Amino acid sequence: MRTVDLIEKKRDGHEMTAEEIQYLIREYNAGRIPDYQMSAWAMAVFFRGMSIRETADLTLAMANSGDVMDLGPIHGIKVDKHSTGGVGDKTTLVLGPLVAAAGVPVAKMSGRGLGHTGGTIDKLESIKGFAVERTRQDFILQVNECGLAVISQSGNITPADKKLYALRDVTATVNSIPLIASSVMSKKIASGADAIVLDVKTGSGAFMKSLDEAVKLAQAMVNIGTQVGRETIALISEMDQPLGFAVGNALEVREAIETLQGGGPEDLKLLCLALGAYMLVLGKKASGLQEAKDRLQELLVNGLALEKFSEFISAQGGDASVAQNPDLLPSAGRQIEISAGASGYVTAINAEDIGLAAMMLGAGRETKDSAIDLSVGIVLRKKLGDPVVMGEALAVLHTNSIRNEAGNHDKKHSEIERKVQKAFQISPHPAQFRPLIHAVVTKDGIKEWKDF
Amino acid sequence: MRTVDLIEKKRDGHEMTAEEIQYLIREYNAGRIPDYQMSAWAMAVFFRGMSIRETADLTLAMANSGDVMDLGPIHGIKVDKHSTGGVGDKTTLVLGPLVAAAGVPVAKMSGRGLGHTGGTIDKLESIKGFAVERTRQDFILQVNECGLAVISQSGNITPADKKLYALRDVTATVNSIPLIASSVMSKKIASGADAIVLDVKTGSGAFMKSLDEAVKLAQAMVNIGTQVGRETIALISEMDQPLGFAVGNALEVREAIETLQGGGPEDLKLLCLALGAYMLVLGKKASGLQEAKDRLQELLVNGLALEKFSEFISAQGGDASVAQNPDLLPSAGRQIEISAGASGYVTAINAEDIGLAAMMLGAGRETKDSAIDLSVGIVLRKKLGDPVVMGEALAVLHTNSIRNEAGNHDKKHSEIERKVQKAFQISPHPAQFRPLIHAVVTKDGIKEWKDF
Repeated sequence: MRTVDLIEKKRDGHEMTAEEIQYLIREYNAGRIPDYQMSAWAMAVFFRGMSIRETADLTLAMANSGDVMDLGPIHGIKVDKHSTGGVGDKTTLVLGPLVAAAGVPVAKMSGRGLGHTGGTIDKLESIKGFAVERTRQDFILQVNECGLAVISQSGNITPADKKLYALRDVTATVNSIPLIASSVMSKKIASGADAIVLDVKTGSGAFMKSLDEAVKLAQAMVNIGTQVGRETIALISEMDQPLGFAVGNALEVREAIETLQGGGPEDLKLLCLALGAYMLVLGKKASGLQEAKDRLQELLVNGLALEKFSEFISAQGGDASVAQNPDLLPSAGRQIEISAGASGYVTAINAEDIGLAAMMLGAGRETKDSAIDLSVGIVLRKKLGDPVVMGEALAVLHTNSIRNEAGNHDKKHSEIERKVQKAFQISPHPAQFRPLIHAVVTKDGIKEWKDF
Repeated sequence: MRTVDLIEKKRDGHEMTAEEIQYLIREYNAGRIPDYQMSAWAMAVFFRGMSIRETADLTLAMANSGDVMDLGPIHGIKVDKHSTGGVGDKTTLVLGPLVAAAGVPVAKMSGRGLGHTGGTIDKLESIKGFAVERTRQDFILQVNECGLAVISQSGNITPADKKLYALRDVTATVNSIPLIASSVMSKKIASGADAIVLDVKTGSGAFMKSLDEAVKLAQAMVNIGTQVGRETIALISEMDQPLGFAVGNALEVREAIETLQGGGPEDLKLLCLALGAYMLVLGKKASGLQEAKDRLQELLVNGLALEKFSEFISAQGGDASVAQNPDLLPSAGRQIEISAGASGYVTAINAEDIGLAAMMLGAGRETKDSAIDLSVGIVLRKKLGDPVVMGEALAVLHTNSIRNEAGNHDKKHSEIERKVQKAFQISPHPAQFRPLIHAVVTKDGIKEWKDF
């Protein structure tokens, strides 16, 4: 097989065989196909796309390029959840304990944050003592005993995907639905999931800015799941403003704890109940969505979800007392209010800019090697649709930056403050907003979302 | 400027600025843009194409990436001729002396052959003593004195094009009209041509198999010439059978000499007169095509073209007596007739297969580093439309291959013989053939060819 012929085949719009795709990924991963051929192929895929079958074959080839977790020793159906990344998205922190309390085993490998979106592993590390590395044996043991474990992605999960993603990042070939879908799904499959619930974000803070693109990505991922025998459903959810109020690692853990205590922001709770209900149904711990949702709501109210959270934190060596006393979480030195420059209604919040501002404060990584400050971040005081009076706080920056000699913030800090203020759009009249959840995509097709 | 942004710009169908194209070529040539970004860009160009302006900017950027010949010290308008490559194409050997005898200075840098098409430099080297390397000073002196010099392309002409072509070759990005056109034209411009006559081949032995593609390529090259101020015209000529009868280095030199002696194959002569007439008109040595053609025909008949050939060969150290006595050229040890398996009319000759068979005999290079045998090749006895009787010779192989102990040709040789025989299609009834010259493309548009 000659690589140049495979590139030409894709370039000319022909369908590649499973064998050809396996060859490409295996040889690339082994360093026997050079980057310059792989990037030309990826660009050809950008223009020509891939069939459902090709995409599934690519997913499997990447999943099998490194270690594949065998979660067989864990009792029950392992349901994984994946979000395509949003600002203030702390659903995993809520959902893990919540569905584990309902009997669905959660054996999760998570990543660290990069750019304007955070990572679950970073957030959990803001809990004192919490260990994100576990041997496979301990990991499985913990899921069987506690129902929940969250560890950092091992170095040798889907190495071909890592290599290809790094190449796509510098060759303008990231933005291809089959390549994005196979990248996500290969990791889920290599992580040993039996079933997968996807949260595909759309809007200003999401990777997929348009609803149409988000639906296509969701369909591609559900199709892969169906092809490879992992039941997969996807919710399309709104990321036109941050989820909840808190953006930043410790701040988000605090908000997740509030939600597990039965409170928390309405949007976060709604999304967790929707995603969680599907997880229960796929995990065969509820026969229908309504029943599932009722169970989950009860677990939030009766304290069992919070109890599961404590149990999970303890199991991974963390200080579980944060569950009762979130003040034990690291906190930033100063809080700076960002106030409204006009009165009216909040008609837009640029979620990506809020995420970037939090990153600039130190909550996120600009590059893979940036250090992060777990205590800093931004807490919104206003969300879409809220009325606001000039001078009233729109958000609060939690910061550790130092004032200069004249007592003023440094230049970068002023830039962050301006960025947050400008992220809010205030208009004299209230506007109409899109719903939090748009649609659900299953192997049977797409349905408009109806709350249950 | 970030390379990934330039790739994305082209990927999304936007027009790149001259500065962006210059940056890309300069940095790639300097090794500061890696192959994997350049191949992704080339694939984006494959799908999106380039505007006339972009193509001209790319051409200039590549032309300026290395040495640019200053032919200013040569008197008169330097008209270069370029063929996109065909089988048995020895027009340069005829045209050089012919138009030089008519007063158009020919300062030509030529290449070596690769694959199924030959190179002028290889052909000239079959003349004993002929030197293909000359200092710039000697080169210019010779053109001023003799009117004609043909040297091997210097190592540092258009290095960016060489590097990009090698990359395209292994990334399935060769087949892009703007990339092919800019590659050809960058070399012509760096070689110092004032005006350019192109012979764009189409048909079974050509790179452009379809007439439509050949016209597009011709238009792209003429557009570049117009944009960069080098008057350019292109003939679209047929390569559905080899040009003339001879294929192979010394064999083609012999046929060129026969043509310069006033004889030679009809198709070769017709094409040389057409291309030559345009060269005279662009070189302002004739006021019209008819006048130009009459002059050239006279020079073939009165012996002045042949005399110019002798002068040229001598000037480059070669044995000019071949002009009177072509038997001095190297000849192969054996001649093997390939005979017709049926009676009828020759209705097709696969030129590419004839070229490949000649290459397999040793006349051409399979890879850049293959050694070649200047004496071997194939001489056709039949051309399209000729009647043929079963058992009659279709072609003669000139070969140096050794019979094995049993007195039979080796396996490879039998394969060559079969290939040549199968290249001829013989049918009971004569067929209609396309004309040798299809069209002429100038800056004013495309015109169907009419002989003058």
